Amino acid sequence: MNLLLYRDLVTRALAEDLGRAGDVTTDLIFSADHRSSAVFRARESGVLAGLEPALEAFRQLSDVTVADAISDGANLSPGTVIARIEGPTRTILTGERTALNLLGHLSGIASRTKRLVDAVAGTGAAVIDTRKTLPGLRALQKYAVTVGGGRNHRLGLDDAVLIKDNHIAACGSLTEAVRRIRAGIGHTVKIEVEVDTLAQFEEALGLEPDIILLDNFSPADLRTAVARRDAAMLLHNRVLLETSGRVTEATIRALAETGVDLISVGALTHSVTVLDIGLDY
Amino acid sequence: MNLLLYRDLVTRALAEDLGRAGDVTTDLIFSADHRSSAVFRARESGVLAGLEPALEAFRQLSDVTVADAISDGANLSPGTVIARIEGPTRTILTGERTALNLLGHLSGIASRTKRLVDAVAGTGAAVIDTRKTLPGLRALQKYAVTVGGGRNHRLGLDDAVLIKDNHIAACGSLTEAVRRIRAGIGHTVKIEVEVDTLAQFEEALGLEPDIILLDNFSPADLRTAVARRDAAMLLHNRVLLETSGRVTEATIRALAETGVDLISVGALTHSVTVLDIGLDY
Amino acid sequence: MNLLLYRDLVTRALAEDLGRAGDVTTDLIFSADHRSSAVFRARESGVLAGLEPALEAFRQLSDVTVADAISDGANLSPGTVIARIEGPTRTILTGERTALNLLGHLSGIASRTKRLVDAVAGTGAAVIDTRKTLPGLRALQKYAVTVGGGRNHRLGLDDAVLIKDNHIAACGSLTEAVRRIRAGIGHTVKIEVEVDTLAQFEEALGLEPDIILLDNFSPADLRTAVARRDAAMLLHNRVLLETSGRVTEATIRALAETGVDLISVGALTHSVTVLDIGLDY
Amino acid sequence: MNLLLYRDLVTRALAEDLGRAGDVTTDLIFSADHRSSAVFRARESGVLAGLEPALEAFRQLSDVTVADAISDGANLSPGTVIARIEGPTRTILTGERTALNLLGHLSGIASRTKRLVDAVAGTGAAVIDTRKTLPGLRALQKYAVTVGGGRNHRLGLDDAVLIKDNHIAACGSLTEAVRRIRAGIGHTVKIEVEVDTLAQFEEALGLEPDIILLDNFSPADLRTAVARRDAAMLLHNRVLLETSGRVTEATIRALAETGVDLISVGALTHSVTVLDIGLDY
Amino acid sequence: MNLLLYRDLVTRALAEDLGRAGDVTTDLIFSADHRSSAVFRARESGVLAGLEPALEAFRQLSDVTVADAISDGANLSPGTVIARIEGPTRTILTGERTALNLLGHLSGIASRTKRLVDAVAGTGAAVIDTRKTLPGLRALQKYAVTVGGGRNHRLGLDDAVLIKDNHIAACGSLTEAVRRIRAGIGHTVKIEVEVDTLAQFEEALGLEPDIILLDNFSPADLRTAVARRDAAMLLHNRVLLETSGRVTEATIRALAETGVDLISVGALTHSVTVLDIGLDY
Amino acid sequence: MNLLLYRDLVTRALAEDLGRAGDVTTDLIFSADHRSSAVFRARESGVLAGLEPALEAFRQLSDVTVADAISDGANLSPGTVIARIEGPTRTILTGERTALNLLGHLSGIASRTKRLVDAVAGTGAAVIDTRKTLPGLRALQKYAVTVGGGRNHRLGLDDAVLIKDNHIAACGSLTEAVRRIRAGIGHTVKIEVEVDTLAQFEEALGLEPDIILLDNFSPADLRTAVARRDAAMLLHNRVLLETSGRVTEATIRALAETGVDLISVGALTHSVTVLDIGLDY
Repeated sequence: MNLLLYRDLVTRALAEDLGRAGDVTTDLIFSADHRSSAVFRARESGVLAGLEPALEAFRQLSDVTVADAISDGANLSPGTVIARIEGPTRTILTGERTALNLLGHLSGIASRTKRLVDAVAGTGAAVIDTRKTLPGLRALQKYAVTVGGGRNHRLGLDDAVLIKDNHIAACGSLTEAVRRIRAGIGHTVKIEVEVDTLAQFEEALGLEPDIILLDNFSPADLRTAVARRDAAMLLHNRVLLETSGRVTEATIRALAETGVDLISVGALTHSVTVLDIGLDY
Repeated sequence: MNLLLYRDLVTRALAEDLGRAGDVTTDLIFSADHRSSAVFRARESGVLAGLEPALEAFRQLSDVTVADAISDGANLSPGTVIARIEGPTRTILTGERTALNLLGHLSGIASRTKRLVDAVAGTGAAVIDTRKTLPGLRALQKYAVTVGGGRNHRLGLDDAVLIKDNHIAACGSLTEAVRRIRAGIGHTVKIEVEVDTLAQFEEALGLEPDIILLDNFSPADLRTAVARRDAAMLLHNRVLLETSGRVTEATIRALAETGVDLISVGALTHSVTVLDIGLDY
Repeated sequence: MNLLLYRDLVTRALAEDLGRAGDVTTDLIFSADHRSSAVFRARESGVLAGLEPALEAFRQLSDVTVADAISDGANLSPGTVIARIEGPTRTILTGERTALNLLGHLSGIASRTKRLVDAVAGTGAAVIDTRKTLPGLRALQKYAVTVGGGRNHRLGLDDAVLIKDNHIAACGSLTEAVRRIRAGIGHTVKIEVEVDTLAQFEEALGLEPDIILLDNFSPADLRTAVARRDAAMLLHNRVLLETSGRVTEATIRALAETGVDLISVGALTHSVTVLDIGLDY
Repeated sequence: MNLLLYRDLVTRALAEDLGRAGDVTTDLIFSADHRSSAVFRARESGVLAGLEPALEAFRQLSDVTVADAISDGANLSPGTVIARIEGPTRTILTGERTALNLLGHLSGIASRTKRLVDAVAGTGAAVIDTRKTLPGLRALQKYAVTVGGGRNHRLGLDDAVLIKDNHIAACGSLTEAVRRIRAGIGHTVKIEVEVDTLAQFEEALGLEPDIILLDNFSPADLRTAVARRDAAMLLHNRVLLETSGRVTEATIRALAETGVDLISVGALTHSVTVLDIGLDY
Repeated sequence: MNLLLYRDLVTRALAEDLGRAGDVTTDLIFSADHRSSAVFRARESGVLAGLEPALEAFRQLSDVTVADAISDGANLSPGTVIARIEGPTRTILTGERTALNLLGHLSGIASRTKRLVDAVAGTGAAVIDTRKTLPGLRALQKYAVTVGGGRNHRLGLDDAVLIKDNHIAACGSLTEAVRRIRAGIGHTVKIEVEVDTLAQFEEALGLEPDIILLDNFSPADLRTAVARRDAAMLLHNRVLLETSGRVTEATIRALAETGVDLISVGALTHSVTVLDIGLDY
Repeated sequence: MNLLLYRDLVTRALAEDLGRAGDVTTDLIFSADHRSSAVFRARESGVLAGLEPALEAFRQLSDVTVADAISDGANLSPGTVIARIEGPTRTILTGERTALNLLGHLSGIASRTKRLVDAVAGTGAAVIDTRKTLPGLRALQKYAVTVGGGRNHRLGLDDAVLIKDNHIAACGSLTEAVRRIRAGIGHTVKIEVEVDTLAQFEEALGLEPDIILLDNFSPADLRTAVARRDAAMLLHNRVLLETSGRVTEATIRALAETGVDLISVGALTHSVTVLDIGLDY
């Protein structure tokens, strides 16, 4: 992932930890030329994500040497060595918490994504994220989803159109909303429409958007929608079907087997459980 | 909470959602003078936190009118009205996701904190947070902990001293580490020492730090430590005792009943489950 | 256009004009309570774009009153009143140059775009921009293109895929490049392929990308490509065809009549002629 | 040019191109350790300006090696090699557009400036720029003017005084305006007065400003003003005479031959035509 | 003084005081709707400077009402009311220290400047500042000098040329240094030369710079230089003469009476004594 | 001191000196490859502080080589070599003033602190700073105080509680104010109470805060307070006693000999006299 996409975030994370006087414990105990080495090591199983942003926390403090680094996407077991780092003791102790906060969070996202992706293996459905991300962390969280094998939904409000019920209600009709969009939108921007019922789905399908989001549909209704879409496909573009709504590891397989193309999961990024990774000296 | 502590974070959250072209869906469907109103409403039970930062997401886009706002710390049930907002439709639709991302995250923190605080009611133990926060969100996350009835541990590396095993190992001895700290630290800064065994605890107690952190101690060992601290109290300051290590709602009561003063819980901020709050039109 | 997309740019533009001491001429001649009014007036024909960013230059200095403002997209003739502004004389004189620099540049873009759009009227071809924008000005420049009736190509490197000759050469083949993209790209992101010859076009067409960019093709070759695309359309999605390469007002009609869907023009944003607009007191 | 004067602008230019996910095309096709080399080469004749800012676009992404770089101010012909660059393929492909946007714009400024400077060769008149620059680009644009052999007018509102008709009108008289300025202005700041008629010029000359700007004067009137200034010179400082107003390559020589010292050209920076420079692999 | 010249500085000053949790004392004692009023009052004699930046500290926290504000430049005696402020108690208590730090520092500068200006009254010499300012405070410090009746030397490295001994030594000769400057410098930029001896002064005078800085000259040598300059004046521009070097209130009159035009005093900004101003409730 | 705590301040200091065109004098006289060396040398006696921030001013401009650097805290005499620097002439001349402004200011603080610390040697009293710092400079100023042997009072509003008369007055009573604080404050945060009279002191002592600030007490009253505190010590924590109020080098010893623990001196940071340090070529 491009350094410029996380460099300032790492600076801010360090800044909020350093405050106005820095790591007073470490600075009073160790001189600037005291050196140490340490090892990032997994303490539970999962998927690694975010090693470069984590290392950036140290690099912004001083030069450090990194060895034996494995790559994002690697499978972790308890004890897996992720990387070794050597440098000024002040740098390692001061940067540790910021690095671990990043690494644990992003690996937590990748690990859960991977479990969901594994759960739908063979169905053809993709596990995708949402805009339900934490403030300031969207780029990194969405990156971690891809590391876990998921795909990204739109990055924000400007790279895809998503017409929701509120848009339709205030505008009068879905048909009118789509018309207004097509009158001004760029040719690289896909159009998605959210529907709550099969009746709305029929209207949407007739407008040939790129994607239709079936919100909180039952598996049976999803199957009906897929069949309708497939029947219509010879005459127009293949409309992708997405489903959403409180998806869990227990329920995702059944959703995937309905034939939908995309299953979006807000919890991938809004309710993350940290993956336990430690820094051993 | 002071506006200046979250204003820039809200700007960044909006910026990462707006991208380079803004909310293209909304801007193409609605003119600038179309107006709407909407209601923040809880969809599950919990504690409200972060309403002002959430409203700030709209205020940075344009003037809006807010009515019937309840206060952070209020108990929520499914359907509780949190606030009504009126303003340009573009503002409400464009700011919605940023506002909800903030509100759900912070209320999720406050709600879990409250459950833990309730679980130790009457024991005298305080539930406290850690530095295991998400990058860029420390101030808001720590604020949400206080809304839920928890207390804050140090805000960062500079407002309290915490001497850990790595400091001691590289320095030679705890006694020497404490000596170096006291030679330079300000008089407003408290000193905490982390210990892993009862033997280390004894050494630490003799140095009269402000706080001793007993990491991963069993309830039995915690009781021993509390008794030792209490016995020593006539002769010196009252040293506060903190325990930490994978605390859950199931285990926290037993820890509190050992007589420790403080129970720190990393998961309060590193593994947050969103509280479901919606914006209804 | 969303205020947050240009607010900081306006601040920077004012800052580079104010330097370290501000408008010393105005501040020494006028007291803070001296007030004036002025009128933005077109001095040549064209299309208005960027009035809100221009007014923002004054609003960042102090409160001002704006009246009789016309909207972006309005046709201008010499003498057309664009807006009247009233406020502190210091604000108006100090903000004038920044406001006019923005307004003249963006209206210059909209005006040229409009001329090109008019030139292809009735052909079905859209006039689109490129990433050949000026540093820091992309969002505003692309907005001005839409005001002039053009459409936006991708906003940057992350909202659409464009596989160019350099990608293909280093990767080995177009087919392999497309395979790698499809293995990881999100479902909202369209894929475009650039080709230099009809042979490359055939290979590209078989891969069914969303868009094919025909770089520097002759009108005859464009016609061939369009015919080939149309013939293939019953079997797969409709691939959009884009042409580019030193398009001018003199040549664009002939390109549009070949049947291509999109004509991209770098000069819309990389070689802008200011539209002459003045501020009269 | 000092790195600190353009470093942040380059960061912003990269940021608006990278968006939230970076160069998805390149990142999916090439691994981080794939390397390439490329050559900046002129595709038309002109003057080089901005090579260091252009290279900075790559340097902010990763280390790169630069060879055979020629200097700003060099004359370019079609095919001239400007610099060779070697580094990670991701860096080169991702930074290319930002680098070329900077280089083409600044070389376009320098090239036009040079043509105007050549047009007045031998007359003693200097070609100077104005504050009609593009938002955020003033420092670089004014630098490019000097590369082309032009001189800079004031950098902003604070480093020279320019009393315009609006100042005079609201203040009552030019004499009073000059009095107020001289009561407070620093001794390093030159004072310029703008006049529209020969009568105003006479009043201005009597006040002995450092510079008088003759706005939209005919060549005949310019000659008269020069003669009057020369006649007055034994008694006071030599007042510099500047002319402005829609100067072109066709008209500038006649203006210069009137004997004025300075000819200011807004189009140098407000209406720039890119110089075509490419990056060949 | 223009708000944009100090707004960000005030934000930073508040941020370094608020830290990560804000004014915990005030926020725990007072609710958000508790209101107070307070009065800025001088506790010693001097000259007021910086009231607007001081008030900005409150305005960034919330709306406040200001009454009875006197203007920068007003003479203060112990007890003088400077302004009354009313608003939320949290705002007033939280912003107080930041406001007073600004006001006391800037008034301290203006007050000392005024004493020096009074000391040279009637001599024709101006008291000027230097670039020996405190990091981040240059604009405000130089503004405060003008409030006290002093004039500003150059604002930075780019708005005037100052050729020092180091430039001359490395370049070979003063004549060559001046030649290089004149080959490229803009026509609005004045040229100053620093000399250490009368011999150097003679060489400098022959080059007709705008200003000559006589560093650490005795009053007798200053008189000689003034006489030489005056004798040369019929033939060329009037070169301004500046003296510098540990000027105090005790020594400045003698320097001024030598006939020099400018006396620069680094201590105006590098060694400031606060003016005691309080905020009474 | 951690680089991240001063890096942006140095950038801003350079930016305000460079303006929009940089060091025009140096850039016109010297080419980019001309190199020089120079020596930082003390011109008066004192204590060194801020060498790393000063060197950072050069490092942000280009690579430089530093040799023979002594450490912050070293005693300086006229002529003491502080460091030698070698690099591009442009870097050294352009960065010189920014570096010296930082170094002289911070060394001035350390030097005065050291004189005060020496004055109370043997008494057990510590010399401490306040929040009366200059805008934007708090972290560096407080660091310089520690270099001079002083201790830091709270860094800002959030790392310690200080209940002042205004808090008490508006709240009703000191006892109530302390109650509110203790209901919400974190366990790492010390509580200080300011008192103006011995009667208030008695009330405060009974509440057992961590620190009591005796504002403007006479030495006799300070002695009384110390005796009362000592008498009470067997029963509760040792409350630290701080005195403040226009402390000078002449008066501080008498204050220290009263037995107070802490003497706070606002002038350490609000009224700094530069230490004269030069850069010799």
